[in-house]
Amino acid sequence: MSVYFEALDWMFHPKSIAVIGASDRKPHIKDLFLNSQRNMGFQGPIYAVNAGGDPVSDYPTYKTISDIPGPVDHVILAVPAARVWEILQEVALKGVRSVTAFTSGFAESDDPAGHALQEKIRAWVQDQQFRFVGPNCMGLYCPETGLGFRPDLPSEQGAIGYVSQSGGMTITGIFMAAGKGLSFSKAVSYGNEIDVTSAELLRYLAHDPATEVVWAYIEGTRDGEDLLEAMRLVVRNKPLLVLKGGSTEGGGRAAASHTGAMAGASNIWRAAIRQTGAILVDNLEEMVDTTMALQWLPPGAGRRLCLACISGGLSVNYTDQSIQSGFEVPALSQSLVQDLRGLIDIPGTSLNNPLDLAAGFFQFQDYPTIFGTIDRSDEIDAMVMILALEYMQVHDSKAKYPDLHKLMRRLFTACRNEMSRPLIMVMPWVMAEEIRLEFEREFLKARFPTYPSMRRALIAMDNWSRYSSQRAPTDGT
Amino acid sequence: MSVYFEALDWMFHPKSIAVIGASDRKPHIKDLFLNSQRNMGFQGPIYAVNAGGDPVSDYPTYKTISDIPGPVDHVILAVPAARVWEILQEVALKGVRSVTAFTSGFAESDDPAGHALQEKIRAWVQDQQFRFVGPNCMGLYCPETGLGFRPDLPSEQGAIGYVSQSGGMTITGIFMAAGKGLSFSKAVSYGNEIDVTSAELLRYLAHDPATEVVWAYIEGTRDGEDLLEAMRLVVRNKPLLVLKGGSTEGGGRAAASHTGAMAGASNIWRAAIRQTGAILVDNLEEMVDTTMALQWLPPGAGRRLCLACISGGLSVNYTDQSIQSGFEVPALSQSLVQDLRGLIDIPGTSLNNPLDLAAGFFQFQDYPTIFGTIDRSDEIDAMVMILALEYMQVHDSKAKYPDLHKLMRRLFTACRNEMSRPLIMVMPWVMAEEIRLEFEREFLKARFPTYPSMRRALIAMDNWSRYSSQRAPTDGT
Repeated sequence: MSVYFEALDWMFHPKSIAVIGASDRKPHIKDLFLNSQRNMGFQGPIYAVNAGGDPVSDYPTYKTISDIPGPVDHVILAVPAARVWEILQEVALKGVRSVTAFTSGFAESDDPAGHALQEKIRAWVQDQQFRFVGPNCMGLYCPETGLGFRPDLPSEQGAIGYVSQSGGMTITGIFMAAGKGLSFSKAVSYGNEIDVTSAELLRYLAHDPATEVVWAYIEGTRDGEDLLEAMRLVVRNKPLLVLKGGSTEGGGRAAASHTGAMAGASNIWRAAIRQTGAILVDNLEEMVDTTMALQWLPPGAGRRLCLACISGGLSVNYTDQSIQSGFEVPALSQSLVQDLRGLIDIPGTSLNNPLDLAAGFFQFQDYPTIFGTIDRSDEIDAMVMILALEYMQVHDSKAKYPDLHKLMRRLFTACRNEMSRPLIMVMPWVMAEEIRLEFEREFLKARFPTYPSMRRALIAMDNWSRYSSQRAPTDGT
Repeated sequence: MSVYFEALDWMFHPKSIAVIGASDRKPHIKDLFLNSQRNMGFQGPIYAVNAGGDPVSDYPTYKTISDIPGPVDHVILAVPAARVWEILQEVALKGVRSVTAFTSGFAESDDPAGHALQEKIRAWVQDQQFRFVGPNCMGLYCPETGLGFRPDLPSEQGAIGYVSQSGGMTITGIFMAAGKGLSFSKAVSYGNEIDVTSAELLRYLAHDPATEVVWAYIEGTRDGEDLLEAMRLVVRNKPLLVLKGGSTEGGGRAAASHTGAMAGASNIWRAAIRQTGAILVDNLEEMVDTTMALQWLPPGAGRRLCLACISGGLSVNYTDQSIQSGFEVPALSQSLVQDLRGLIDIPGTSLNNPLDLAAGFFQFQDYPTIFGTIDRSDEIDAMVMILALEYMQVHDSKAKYPDLHKLMRRLFTACRNEMSRPLIMVMPWVMAEEIRLEFEREFLKARFPTYPSMRRALIAMDNWSRYSSQRAPTDGT
């Protein structure tokens, strides 16, 4: 294990980088691989290499990697496939520790020559002193050391470790997560997987102390049993969310022309992944939504929800949706309803579960006591606050409370302080989407899992509660 | 039929309105029922009535409805339940044509007196000359005549007719639809349904020429067979989307304390509604999403999708999601792929379905020809353009194209002009949600169904394509 861990840990902590194939005539390559490292704050030297020796503005440029006077730890290859073999020979002589290859045109292409070249490199690279990621990949993202593959990637360090066969899914996943205030420890777009495998990367993340939650986007792999074994290792240490690309025949065809992966019989794959204890998700949205719950909620395995709402109709429909998703919305005991009636006694409020706060909605000062009373009753496992902004007539309320979104954050933070159980926010999208976003950002800042629909909240909470209940025995609770 | 139609049509076209129970001391009531009509542009006199005779600023005020000198067509009751009986006697003498009652405290409450009073009114009102909507409801919304129940409701006239047992679901539905550029012909929140029934309202909308799509939110009803019969009538004329509240035991309990409705055995209800040919949806989001497709797409029953995307990984996952939702993403024929290769020949693009445009993504000028060529091939039934903004590096692109969102609207409008089949936009939410909204609004303006996730697009398209295929035989196609 430690040999794997160290080799890959070096890869994330190089002291110098060379980008082979960079030139001012290829601004896209320069942007992706030279400017990215600089923008991410990489501290060591960043060299440009191109065969013509054309100077690349802002970076020391050499004709070959051998010409670089100092040592080079990490190489990014961005040359055409036809030149890769020759350049790898020079790279090997330079004594680098790791290579990522952006170059495409290998097993993912229609070209038999590309398939043959990939095999030739694969056989050769096993005997080399360096590790090889790709080809046909974006490579490494690590905010801690300043590695990236787009100049606009977020520089915040976080706790998600992400292993992805697809560069696109890596980029979209990083930006989607950032939209909810979630950040990454490391992400690797590993493409055609001729040397460093998804299984190795997962083992690394299982042991990486900076990583608390692991994401994997997998299309296919050479050694399925090894991948499943690595998943089991991750699951023993931290939650693992897996998105399987090519889960259908059509998706498999797309995957073949994308990373050359044989996606394999989908039902078997999906069942096997589930058996490892990983959380199998259907799309990136679910990945992000579930991660908010995993990172920000206390563990909680029970499935009894209390819904608090300002609209009777919404509370009926949200109760239906909850029960159809396998949750309970139990009636509260008579004594608890009486206790609540003592706290908020306004005509039109319904104080059984779901709580329809109606006109009582604006009695904000009473919320912490109400939420605390329900929490202590032990009759529910989690509280869902449905903040339907169209009932707050936000424009009017904003006149009264110019910083209503901040007031709401403080209010629900006070509620949460009275509770030992999870509190989740649902703010359905409405007309004034910009105003909804203003509220959402405040809640995300305070680390409330916040969802734009009950359906998305329920999918995330289902994953979270299954994970919690699976952990319960080993936690001794 | 015509007697129903006319009585209800009068209700939507009153010449004068009185709000009983309005006063300056109840700004909420004044806002909901006096200011709403004025803001919506109601042209006739709007009277305030309160027993104390306190003048209500900006409105002519009377102690009783009998004191109003001219005729009164429509009455909105907003007095406590205990006073309703006495006031209805005066209303009957005035010769009004319709009454909506906001007042609650009837069969939806725990109070046996409320149940008894509702029965008493119900029996009496059958013999009166006016129609009664409610109690426990918000009443009527009609942009054409200027009727509403919140001063901030949109004043645009549209083609959705909405019958809803819940005031909250009416309000949320109207605002959600407005957020996507969809408007209403009429909406009625009808509450406890003691006189005017959901079935009557549906029959009215079936015949209403201003209504092209009908929405219904139903918790329960006294005469289920009559309601189903009315649904069948609507379906013969126009699409009907139904959301059933209280579809679960817990939801049924919530519905009972909301509108006093006995929601009834959910599976039987759901099966019976489906058999009418109505589209049964799970939530308001699905209602709005489906309506965009029904209103803006040409009819199309086939299920073969062509996906165009800029990211290989996303295109794999979106293909999986499509197939899991019962669509096909068929491989294109070799000759069609060759034709496309002639139009866009850039390394890294995959021109089989799903189309991974990759670096070819920015060859905008070629899109209309590409989309037209695929459309004419007859190999697919609908095109889904996945516009992943994180690949457009919007900030940079905006520097190059300061009005990129407008350029994109013109571009895809040009593509649509080359096509006879539907074109749908999917723009996944990312980090810069405000920028995504800017694009979304442009596409909505041009009446492209636009969805923030593939999942939501697929649910809407599934409903739309089922509706189209069900219509196909009667259309003779």
